Order: sequence, then C-alpha cells, then structure tokens
Amino acid sequence: MNKSKTLLAAALFSAMATTAQAGSEIETLITMLHENGMVSDEQYGRLVAELEQNKAQSVEKDTKIQAQLTEATKPSDVEVKVKGGVTVKTRDGKFSTKLGGRLQADAAAYSADPEMGDGTEIRRARLYLEGTMYSDWGYKLEYDFASTGANGKGITDALITYKGVDHLELKVGHFKDPFSLEQQTSANNVMFTERSLAGAFAPGRHIGVMASTNQQHWSLAGGVFGDTVSATNGTSHDQDEGWGLGARATFAPINEKTKVIHLGLGLNYRDTGGLGTTSFSQQAETHISGVNIVNTGTITGVSDFLKVGAELATVMGPFSAQAEYITTSVSRNNASDLDFNGWYAQAGYFLTGESRNYKKGIFGSVTPKASVGEGGIGAWELGLRYSTVDLTDADIMGGEADSVTLGVNWYATPTLRFSANYIDVLDVKGGTYDDQEPRVFQVRSQWAF
Amino acid sequence: MNKSKTLLAAALFSAMATTAQAGSEIETLITMLHENGMVSDEQYGRLVAELEQNKAQSVEKDTKIQAQLTEATKPSDVEVKVKGGVTVKTRDGKFSTKLGGRLQADAAAYSADPEMGDGTEIRRARLYLEGTMYSDWGYKLEYDFASTGANGKGITDALITYKGVDHLELKVGHFKDPFSLEQQTSANNVMFTERSLAGAFAPGRHIGVMASTNQQHWSLAGGVFGDTVSATNGTSHDQDEGWGLGARATFAPINEKTKVIHLGLGLNYRDTGGLGTTSFSQQAETHISGVNIVNTGTITGVSDFLKVGAELATVMGPFSAQAEYITTSVSRNNASDLDFNGWYAQAGYFLTGESRNYKKGIFGSVTPKASVGEGGIGAWELGLRYSTVDLTDADIMGGEADSVTLGVNWYATPTLRFSANYIDVLDVKGGTYDDQEPRVFQVRSQWAF
Amino acid sequence: MNKSKTLLAAALFSAMATTAQAGSEIETLITMLHENGMVSDEQYGRLVAELEQNKAQSVEKDTKIQAQLTEATKPSDVEVKVKGGVTVKTRDGKFSTKLGGRLQADAAAYSADPEMGDGTEIRRARLYLEGTMYSDWGYKLEYDFASTGANGKGITDALITYKGVDHLELKVGHFKDPFSLEQQTSANNVMFTERSLAGAFAPGRHIGVMASTNQQHWSLAGGVFGDTVSATNGTSHDQDEGWGLGARATFAPINEKTKVIHLGLGLNYRDTGGLGTTSFSQQAETHISGVNIVNTGTITGVSDFLKVGAELATVMGPFSAQAEYITTSVSRNNASDLDFNGWYAQAGYFLTGESRNYKKGIFGSVTPKASVGEGGIGAWELGLRYSTVDLTDADIMGGEADSVTLGVNWYATPTLRFSANYIDVLDVKGGTYDDQEPRVFQVRSQWAF
Repeated sequence: MNKSKTLLAAALFSAMATTAQAGSEIETLITMLHENGMVSDEQYGRLVAELEQNKAQSVEKDTKIQAQLTEATKPSDVEVKVKGGVTVKTRDGKFSTKLGGRLQADAAAYSADPEMGDGTEIRRARLYLEGTMYSDWGYKLEYDFASTGANGKGITDALITYKGVDHLELKVGHFKDPFSLEQQTSANNVMFTERSLAGAFAPGRHIGVMASTNQQHWSLAGGVFGDTVSATNGTSHDQDEGWGLGARATFAPINEKTKVIHLGLGLNYRDTGGLGTTSFSQQAETHISGVNIVNTGTITGVSDFLKVGAELATVMGPFSAQAEYITTSVSRNNASDLDFNGWYAQAGYFLTGESRNYKKGIFGSVTPKASVGEGGIGAWELGLRYSTVDLTDADIMGGEADSVTLGVNWYATPTLRFSANYIDVLDVKGGTYDDQEPRVFQVRSQWAF
Repeated sequence: MNKSKTLLAAALFSAMATTAQAGSEIETLITMLHENGMVSDEQYGRLVAELEQNKAQSVEKDTKIQAQLTEATKPSDVEVKVKGGVTVKTRDGKFSTKLGGRLQADAAAYSADPEMGDGTEIRRARLYLEGTMYSDWGYKLEYDFASTGANGKGITDALITYKGVDHLELKVGHFKDPFSLEQQTSANNVMFTERSLAGAFAPGRHIGVMASTNQQHWSLAGGVFGDTVSATNGTSHDQDEGWGLGARATFAPINEKTKVIHLGLGLNYRDTGGLGTTSFSQQAETHISGVNIVNTGTITGVSDFLKVGAELATVMGPFSAQAEYITTSVSRNNASDLDFNGWYAQAGYFLTGESRNYKKGIFGSVTPKASVGEGGIGAWELGLRYSTVDLTDADIMGGEADSVTLGVNWYATPTLRFSANYIDVLDVKGGTYDDQEPRVFQVRSQWAF
Repeated sequence: MNKSKTLLAAALFSAMATTAQAGSEIETLITMLHENGMVSDEQYGRLVAELEQNKAQSVEKDTKIQAQLTEATKPSDVEVKVKGGVTVKTRDGKFSTKLGGRLQADAAAYSADPEMGDGTEIRRARLYLEGTMYSDWGYKLEYDFASTGANGKGITDALITYKGVDHLELKVGHFKDPFSLEQQTSANNVMFTERSLAGAFAPGRHIGVMASTNQQHWSLAGGVFGDTVSATNGTSHDQDEGWGLGARATFAPINEKTKVIHLGLGLNYRDTGGLGTTSFSQQAETHISGVNIVNTGTITGVSDFLKVGAELATVMGPFSAQAEYITTSVSRNNASDLDFNGWYAQAGYFLTGESRNYKKGIFGSVTPKASVGEGGIGAWELGLRYSTVDLTDADIMGGEADSVTLGVNWYATPTLRFSANYIDVLDVKGGTYDDQEPRVFQVRSQWAF
C-alpha cells in the first residue's frame, strides 16, 4: 500500500475509524481492497464518497426514528385513572380532578318499645368533584342527594383550599368543624353503621375559614365559622345567624402502619346569634326510624354553648379501640346553665388480619388483603361498642340513654362494604321514652370511592 | 479456496450463514474475496471480527427500537370514550365508569274540558355515574333534578350489583320492581312521550334485593323490596313501611336483530305496612298539567294488593307492536276487595327502515341508519296507541278512561329524539271528570346517553 | 469490463442505481470488483441475488417500523384536559364533553336600619355537563345545589343546541331570556358580588326556543318562551302558564382585544297566563339577608308587561365601564298601567393591567397575567357602581332606592376569584323601608371553570 493511499484513507475515514460502528466493516474492506490494489484510486474515491453520503443518510434516518420513538414513548401529559371513580391529573401535578361518590342503602327492623317503624332508606347518596388547580389551590363540591329537608341542605363539602405554604392548609367554604374523632372520620369508615349516642354533640358543618397542619405525630386545626348552609337569618330574615370557633389537636406518640396510639382534644364554641335557641337529640344509633330516644327539644334563651371533647384510640395489628368523652355547657340568659355529656368506648378486630388505617388524626378506609373478584374473601371485622348520652339537666328533661352495639363489617373490595349491626338500648331514663329499651337490627350496603 | 480458510469461515459465520439476512451479502463478499485470495487471512480475520461486532451492535439497536416500539404502540391501560357522555375503562375490563344523563324538555297545549293549563316543563333532567369495580361488582347512582317533592325523591337508580356468577346478577339498592314491559323500558325509549293509561299500576322503584338472569330467549327476575326512597314511616316515624315481592318472566321464541316475538308475565305483591293505604290515579298521557283524569283518592284499610300483568310484543323489520294487560286486586280489612285493570295496544313503523332494538326482555334505544350531522336525516317513526284504565269498583269511584294517541318520533342522532304526540281522550266515565274528553298536543326535545 | 457484465449489472441494479441509498456502496463495490475481475460472474450473480433479497427485507423492515412509528406517534383519538374541570373531546371535533362547575361562598355584615341579619351563605354551588354530539348538536345540563325552594328550581341551563347552519345557533330547553348585559354576563364574571338594583327587572330563565347569531361586530338573538322550570299551572294545575317573547341586539363598532365599544338593546314581553299576577322586588345588592328593600308585592289583574333595556359599555385597556337603563310597563285589566324603571353605571380598573374580556356581546372571565401558584400575584381590580330602581307608580308603593358600591376583586388564578364589596344604600324612598339607609359589607370566595 503506497503512502498516498494511506493518507487518503486517513483523511476520509478519520472520524469513523476510531471505534467500530454499524457498517464499518465495509469501510475496512474498501480500504483493504484499495491497499491490496484491488480497486483503483478513482474507484476508491467514488466508493468512499458514496459511503460517506450513505452514512450521513443513515445517521439522519436513525435520528428521525429516535425522535419519533422519544415522542411516542413519552408519557401523556394527562393521566386518567378509574377505580370506581375517575381521576384525571396532569403529569406535572399542577392540575387534577376527581369525580367520586358514595351510596349507603340501609334496612332496619325494630323490636320492643317504642314503636320505631321497620323500613328501608338510602342513607347517603353523594357525588363529589374535587381537585387541584395551579399547583397551590384545591377545590371540592359534594352533594348528598339523600338529604331531606331544604334543598341546599344536601351540600356537604363546598370549599377552596390554599396549599402554597409548607405543612399548612387554609380552607374556606362549607365543611366540618374540627371536633371529635368519630365525627372527623368519614361515615364511610366509622366502625358501626351509625355513630355513637355521644354523636348528639356533633357540631356538623358550617361556612367558615380554617387553618390546619398535619405532621407525622400530631395535627392541629382551628377555624372561625358562620352558620350552616341552610341557615336563613330567622323567618323574617332580619336576625344575625350564629357563629362559632373550633379547634382540635391530636397527638400520636406511636404512628406506624399497624401500630397507633392516638390522643385528641377538641373545643367547639358557638354563639346562637339572633335566634338564641339550640337543641340536642339522638336516635338509637339508627336513622331509618327517625325516633329520637333522647331529645332536649328547643332550648330557648341560649346565648352560647361550649363543647369539650377528649379522644383516645389505638391500633395494634388487627385490633383497634377508640373512646371519646364529650361535655357540653349551655349558657342561658335568664336561667341556670346546662351541662350535658356523653361518651363511648369501642373495639374492633379484623378476622382477616387487616389493620385500621390511621392518617392525619383520623381513621381512613379499609383495604382488604384480597378482594372478592380477585380471588379473595375481602376483609371481615367484628366490633363492639358501649355508648351513653345524658341530655337531662336542671329543667331540661331530655333523657339519658345507654346502649351496646355488636357489628360485623365485610369489606368485599376497597370500594365496597356490607355491615350488619345489632343495637340493644340498655335503658332510657327520663324524657318521652322513659324506661323503654328498643332493640335494632340494621344492615347496610355501601360503595364509596 | 484452501481448507483452513473454509473452516475459519464456517466457524465464524456458522449461525449467520443459514439464511440470508440484512447485510449478509457483505459476509458473502468477504468470504469470496478471501477464497479468491483478494484479502489475506489476517485481513479476513479483522474483517470478520469487525463484522461480528457490528452485527451484535445492530441486533442490540434493533432490539432496543423494537422494545420502544412495543412500548409505544401498546394500547393505554385506560380507554376514554366520548359520545355524549364519557366512558372510562381499563383495558383489562376490571374497572369502568360512565358519566351520562338525559334531558326531556316538554311543552303541551290542551283543549276541551277539563281545563288543564297549557305550559312547559323539564320532564326529566338526570345525571348518573355507573361502573364496574374489581371485575365482579357494579354500581350506579342516578338523580333526577327535575323531580318535584321531597329532595331524596329524585334518586332513581342507586345500587350495587354482583356479577361474579355466570348468567346471574344480584342487585341491592333502589331500582325498579320487575314488572310490565313499558315500565321496564326506559322513558327515553318508550314509543310515546308518556306511558299508557295502564301505567296507573306502575309499581315504580323501591329499596330492595333482586336476582335476575338474561338468556337469548328468556329472562327471569325476582326480588324482595322495602319501600320507596322517600317513605318516612308515617308522620310520627313509628309505623312500619310497606314491603313487597316482585317477579317477571319473559320468553322470546324469536329474538333476531329485526324480528322478535316477546311474551311476558309479571307479578307484584305489596303489603302496605303500618299506614294501610294506597291510591291509583293517572293523567291523560300527559304530565305538564298535573290533572289526574282518573283517581281513586286514598283507599284506607288496605292490607295488601297484587298486580298481575301479561305482555305481548313483536318486531318485524321497521314495524313493531306491543300490548299489555294489567289487573290489580286490593285486599281491604273491613270492606270488600277491589279489582282495577287497564290495558293498551300500540304499533309503530319506521319510515326510514330502522327496527326497534329488543334486548334482555325490554326495548332499548333507537339508532338511526344515518344521523343528522353525518349526512343523514335521522330515523322517523310513526306510532298509534289505544289505552284504557278502569279505577272504579265497589265504593271506589276512581273513573274509567280510554284514549287514542298518535305520535311521531324523530331520532336525529342516537342521542337525540324529538317527539310530537296528539292524545284524544275518547271518554271519561265516572269520577271527578265524568263525561269529559280532553285533547292534548305535546312535544318533547330529548337528549340521552 | 466486458459488455455482458455491464448489461447484467444494468439489469440487476436498474432501479437502485439512480440515487445513492443506504448500503448502495456495497452494490457499487460489488460491481467494481466484478468489473475489475476480482469476483467471477457466478460469484457476482450470487452476491447480487443475496443483496437484492437483503434489500427487500430491509425495505420491509423499515416499512414495518415506520408503520409502527406512525401508529405510535399519531395523537390519540380522544383528548383529555384538566384545568379545574375536565374536558374530553375527539380529535375530529365531532364529540366533546365538559364537566365543570362553580362555588360561591359568601359572608355579609349589615349595619344601620333595617335589621338584615349578618350571616354566611353558599350563594351558588353548581355542576354542569355540556358537550357536542355528531358535529352539529350540543347539549347542557347545569344544576345549582344551593338553590332554595322547590327541587327542580335548581335547574339552570338544560338545553339542546343545533349548530348545523353557519353563524346560526338554535336552542331549545331552559335558559336565560336574551335581555340586559349584566344578566347575560355570568354571575361568575360580573364586576360586583351581586348585580345592580336594576336587576329587579331580570327576566331570568324560561323553557323555550331561541335563534341567535354572533358576528365580530354584532349579535342578535330572539326567542319564544314558556314559563320557568318550576311553574306549575297554578295550585289546581288548571291555569295556562305564562309565555313570552324576547330579543336582544348588540353592536360593537370597536371590538379589539383590549378596546371595545358596546351598544345594546333588549326587548322582553311577557303574558302572565292564567294567574294574571306579577311582582318586582330587590335586595340591597346583597343576598344573604333576604330582605327586599324595594318590593311591589303581588300585583294582580296583570295581563302582560314589556321590558325595554338600553346598554352601553366600553373597555380601554385596564379600564372598563358599563351602564344600563331598563323600563318596565305593566298592563293591568282593571287599573291604570304601571311604569317602573331602574339604571346603573359602573367603572372598573385593573391595577395589574388586565383587560375585561368581551366576546359575543357579553363579558367573559378574567385571566390574570400571572397566577398565584405560578409566580404571580393574580389580577387585582377596583370597581365603583351607582345604581337605582323605582318600583313606585300609581297605587303600587314598591319604593325607590339608590346605592353606591365599592368593590375589589382578586382573581388569584383564571379559576379563582375573591371579592369584597361595600354597599352604601343612599336612600330608600317609600315602601316598607322608607327613609332607611342600610350599609352592607360582604365577601365572596369563588371557584368556577
């Protein structure tokens, strides 16, 4: 091989020669044949030129394919999920929307006195739309189609949240006052079909503003509230609505996946506004009948009242327990103050080994280890509760009641729950139903997501 | 070519040599040149090594591209469809959700006696969410915003289904009792704007449990029901709600796409519960007015009643016909039993050649051969109906009425329907409107999906 | 090179030889080597055959990859967007569905007489589903869960549209009569929390049919309407509902992005139907209280009434202004006709430089230049309004009122708005609240999309 050939080869193949690359053997062959004198310089020149051109074309083609592949394999900007409800969110996390809901279809049979009326009921039938907007903002609107009474009354959560500051959430709209573990826990997720007798003191939802923070071992929430969504400034619309203050602090010294100790304290103050009335009542841990076994009736001349609640709860593997005590002090203008109170203690055990799901100071939904429809039998839970409430004080003879409830829950899938409860009202003392001891058997079929 | 060269070639090219493959001509060429002595053994060795390396790289590159292509071309896990409503489902069929609804906007003009009040109405305005969860489970919640009366009353379908056993569906919640072809057929799909006079005996929806099975040539459904969604255990909440049993069997000896013969039988028993009352009434196949031309008023002392219905229907190409007879026997505690009955017969014909869509023992929605907006004129159907009801027996003078209805339906698209009906009440005998013969002209604009 | 070889080469390589292509250098090389006599004719034939086969395979492979790439990179048939609400549409534009809504959570404090009752309110809480079907058709159903009163009353827009004719839209269902700039503009987008005192003459929504056209510089809409969605033909259902005619024309000699001059004229005629009554009233540009500071009460013996409205509006960069005058003439059967009227004038200024968004003869939503959550402070707007209404004429002493309103709007994102209004009722003359001058401070938090 003469020098000129070598130089020519070097000049032409400089870049390519460094490492082997697709088709490089043809370069090598051409060079060899040229060196061996099998092709002339002119032929060699033509071959090299053609090779170069083809290589450039090949690179261009590969680049184009790669660009197309990159385009084709990149995840879509929007992700759609369906698991009962539908969730749509942008990959960048700036926007999301979820459409969800719940249904609770109940039936109940009553025995012993008082007559309570066997029957059926759609207990709750809700749809909601909630989401995130522009990274820092959230919204929600939920409506309960099973709500009776004035139309707007079916509005449950209707709110805006601001999450632009770390560990802090600001909320404005209509939502639950921060008070009581069993009230904060969704009705989808409480252990029995109805909350305890102490639920007589549930503050419910009001239109207001709240700030809250949730950490691994504690949570804190406090807000200022106006009145309920259906409050109407009295019949002549000229009286101030009520307003209130609420705060709840929780502390979880242990908060692991299957091991929790929870302590909580709630305060709820309410000024009754221009109406100056309030009332407390409770059914026998049932809702179909509508009979309130304890009931203060309308208490007049009320300026304000204060509720204080203490919470205790634990999860130890499949076992869980929870207890609350709530006391309510009612200040009256021209009569002595009133003190009412109630408490409950309950325990539950998963036969199938699941654990109650504790998060942000409340209990969340139960996820069975193996769902029905995926080869499993779902999650099975037994529960027992004692609860009591006393609505009798001074001249107000609302009555006192206590009851024991035995329940079984079958969580067929994470979205389905079937429950059966047997409630034995041990005694009613005072009030309309003095000395009566109704018994309730009720069942619920529920989907929620 | 010497033997060593041949062996070398064989060793190096063993696998590749079997069938021609991309670039194999270069191998062949190299081998030839080596055999022809154009390249030295050393050169040949280098060429073969380089070729091998390049081939490995090429295979790797192809594999990578193929993997990317496979990833890129595989269908997404979630499929989203929009055709009026929105359907989201997972490819594996385990989960799906549909958001749909309907609107019926009506106007009516009345002539002759009684005065019925011309006007307009949103007849139905519904949204629903329904879907499948964990393969075997289904759910639905539908609400009618046009519903008048108590709030929860607008709940139509609110239910859970279990489909884990072949050919069987279990249902719990609030839904229609299985009774009567025209009642089972959606209001979107019945031939006239309102159901027949015999619809006075429609059992409606109750909260209950039902099992059903649907085969090509027959269907069977039976259930136990509590009361309606808005039943409230009487005004003092202490009376048992009513309950009932319902069953329907259908047989279709011919069930082809455009040729159907349908026979059906329905039974519906209802215990009136603690209230012990019932009533039957019907408007003149119109709804805007609200005037019931026949009306038993409240019948007291009723223990229970039984409805029996016989169905007959056929589809023969564009022609369809259907008839039903329903009789109701009311048992009273301290008075003679009552027998009421009604029937109708109707026929329809598609001028544009479509056929009524029969499926699972009911009629479904009509799909025009060519929609407006896609170059067609939609589907046009003419219909004629005679219907009658007799609500007079013993001391109950509810009245007897019969009417003829002439209708035209324009299905502009599968999701849109415009209807005009002319109803001539031939006679009312007995009751409040004895001897009166109102005439009704009413139109409807409907979307449904 | 002999001739036969050349011919052979020509025959074999005819097509390929025209332009260089990937791997063509090997062809060239083979031909050269053949020409140079380095490979035999037989060898050359084999090489060419193999090359041909490999080329065909290569083309096939490339074609397959390209087909897969085309499949993989083509946009999905359905596009899903989430920005608060969710929009799903097909690429071909034939179908689309949007799920959206709004929430307005209000609080108000009142001072001076009359007593109006401080409080809170969910002013509006709506969800809607709207979309396009089969290219030419549209639909919408919106419900306001905050609506009080009869259930169906919460239905706002419930309609079908036909858009198959250029520049023309036909609409049937329940929607707003075409009248008044501030009424046509969504409550989400009007400058103050409540519309002006002249809003006493708002015709509201009725069930009807309307045709409209929108051009760059003008719009025209006219329709025939029945009654409202909750009209019930009187208590005994036997009286004709009311009906009406409505038309609105707008002219925008200047209609640029940040520069608009708008003129409008509206006519609204209404026959009161069988009831023969009407009434006009208005609150002090507030809604929580429910106190009507001017109120004609029920006017009886009314056959019909006619409203005429004139509109004027402008946008000049961040500045906007708008004014309307409305007069209403009520014809009575046995008494003199009545004339009522009202007007307002308002101006607004964006401190952050945005412009009011004018489109199709109304004002749309405001888009801040930089949203909170995306590094901005949102849009800030100041507004001032004077408005007045006179409901006193002849024997009807409804009262006369005028007020000044000062407002500030913070549009944190395109979907969020926070507003504070101070309303000073300058005077009420006549009527129940003669000589009283209430003052209102109210705030609103809103999401809408």
